[in-house]
Amino acid sequence: MIDKLVIVGVGLIGGSFALALKRKGLVKRVVGVGRGRANLERALQLGLIDEIADAPDAAYRGADFIFVATPVGQMARVFAQIAPCLDDRTIVTDGGSTKSDVVVLARAAFGSRFAQFVPAHPIAGAELTGAEAARAELYEGKKLVIAALPETAPGAILRVRQAWEACGARVFEMAPDLHDQTFAAVSHLPHVLAFALVDEIARKPHAETLFQYAASGFRDFTRIAGSSPEMWRDISIANRTALLVEIDEYLMRLQAVRAMIAAGDAAALDMVFANARDARRAWLDSIESQGKGASLPVRDA
Amino acid sequence: MIDKLVIVGVGLIGGSFALALKRKGLVKRVVGVGRGRANLERALQLGLIDEIADAPDAAYRGADFIFVATPVGQMARVFAQIAPCLDDRTIVTDGGSTKSDVVVLARAAFGSRFAQFVPAHPIAGAELTGAEAARAELYEGKKLVIAALPETAPGAILRVRQAWEACGARVFEMAPDLHDQTFAAVSHLPHVLAFALVDEIARKPHAETLFQYAASGFRDFTRIAGSSPEMWRDISIANRTALLVEIDEYLMRLQAVRAMIAAGDAAALDMVFANARDARRAWLDSIESQGKGASLPVRDA
Repeated sequence: MIDKLVIVGVGLIGGSFALALKRKGLVKRVVGVGRGRANLERALQLGLIDEIADAPDAAYRGADFIFVATPVGQMARVFAQIAPCLDDRTIVTDGGSTKSDVVVLARAAFGSRFAQFVPAHPIAGAELTGAEAARAELYEGKKLVIAALPETAPGAILRVRQAWEACGARVFEMAPDLHDQTFAAVSHLPHVLAFALVDEIARKPHAETLFQYAASGFRDFTRIAGSSPEMWRDISIANRTALLVEIDEYLMRLQAVRAMIAAGDAAALDMVFANARDARRAWLDSIESQGKGASLPVRDA
Repeated sequence: MIDKLVIVGVGLIGGSFALALKRKGLVKRVVGVGRGRANLERALQLGLIDEIADAPDAAYRGADFIFVATPVGQMARVFAQIAPCLDDRTIVTDGGSTKSDVVVLARAAFGSRFAQFVPAHPIAGAELTGAEAARAELYEGKKLVIAALPETAPGAILRVRQAWEACGARVFEMAPDLHDQTFAAVSHLPHVLAFALVDEIARKPHAETLFQYAASGFRDFTRIAGSSPEMWRDISIANRTALLVEIDEYLMRLQAVRAMIAAGDAAALDMVFANARDARRAWLDSIESQGKGASLPVRDA
């Protein structure tokens, strides 16, 4: 049971977390902190939070669970506000899509209380933002990565794990650097590729004709380019070390495919396309065989 | 009314066309031609066709409407088989995703009867293949491009247009080269990008961990990498002139975005990502305002 849950950034991620815990009766009071008053008012109307913080530090004091669900770019400021308000029983966790940089920020801000901070990342993408987008079922069957460090308090990890499992998430653990490399490849790179494609097409002189003939394949390929520019700008910069490695490897692969097309090398293209199709099919099959709704806590890496 | 419709390649595209026309009562007899006997047997069971051709030339003789719905790579062979069987009233059309190369093949094969060939491209992507995938509603509200030439017989164009409109498609007309440039940008390039990404990830030593954390954004981004390798190999090579231009422009854009990330240039990334998000949103809004199900024949280009 959480007595006082503070959600910093009551949008899709923070709002859905609060709503899921409230539905399960696992939280007594939820306090919302955020930059936009209108969004907080809406969150209150929707029942995601029970009250809007008059001042952030008043909200943080006496809280036993603080969930920082802001874009990564705001976390330095938020952590600095939280740090002086922590007491022994407060647990702080986050929902950022990158972990190494968040760990650096948290270590700098929390100092001797760094063990009370549990870095985490819910894998629940959606291009919607704001309190309006929150829903209690968002995390059902989704993955949640805890990227704890050797010094992170086991009791804090356990409480964060239990809260996410109560939301329906399947909890995994990974070191922060492995987390960042992994998501650079399977999430951050695809976002950059999709944004770059739509930007490229939109800048062409005949963009209007092009968009007129774009169909369902284009729609799905670019769905992630409908995501928040602010969030993805922050992620791209925060995880730039791992992301640049992935972009460079991708550029080399694309250059190789370009050379096959230029040479009319049907056999080589066949191998690339068939390898991709087969790998994707195997991936989909393995997801299905996991039983998407099941809770399956596995310690990884 | 079509007396004898021959479908060459009774898969998703050809089978759905036949089924839609049969449902409307606009065709007396449908004959299937194809490489795979099992697929033709299934097409017969499913009622997509009324008979399987014993020999292709017997099927083509006396047909008033021949729809070549094979991969583009097979069309040279198919056109050569059809050419000697044409009579004055036969119309031939195709469903290939590239048009300039198909026009060259058709001109070479049909010679003085080239005016009876109507190059066409139904914009109805799906990663499914084979007779099993066919459905009568596939083309409802979808676009169909007729890429006719000045010498194409107006009566042939009209009959092809009417058949596709009967299937529920919205028919547009574009010159073959403009068609190919357009689809290189909005369809062929995204397919190459998606295939290249999945291939790249599948080849990494830690591919298994990567796929374990791939989520819904990755699934949608790579949906088109589930498409037929044979078909996309053929398209990539057939349309290589236009596709290489698009790949090179995309490589330059991606290099530019890479430089912004490396420099930590948040303002520049914001502009790229926001431009992409806004352009995509405007595109989705314009699709919705068109009323997807409506038939809206517009002459374009």
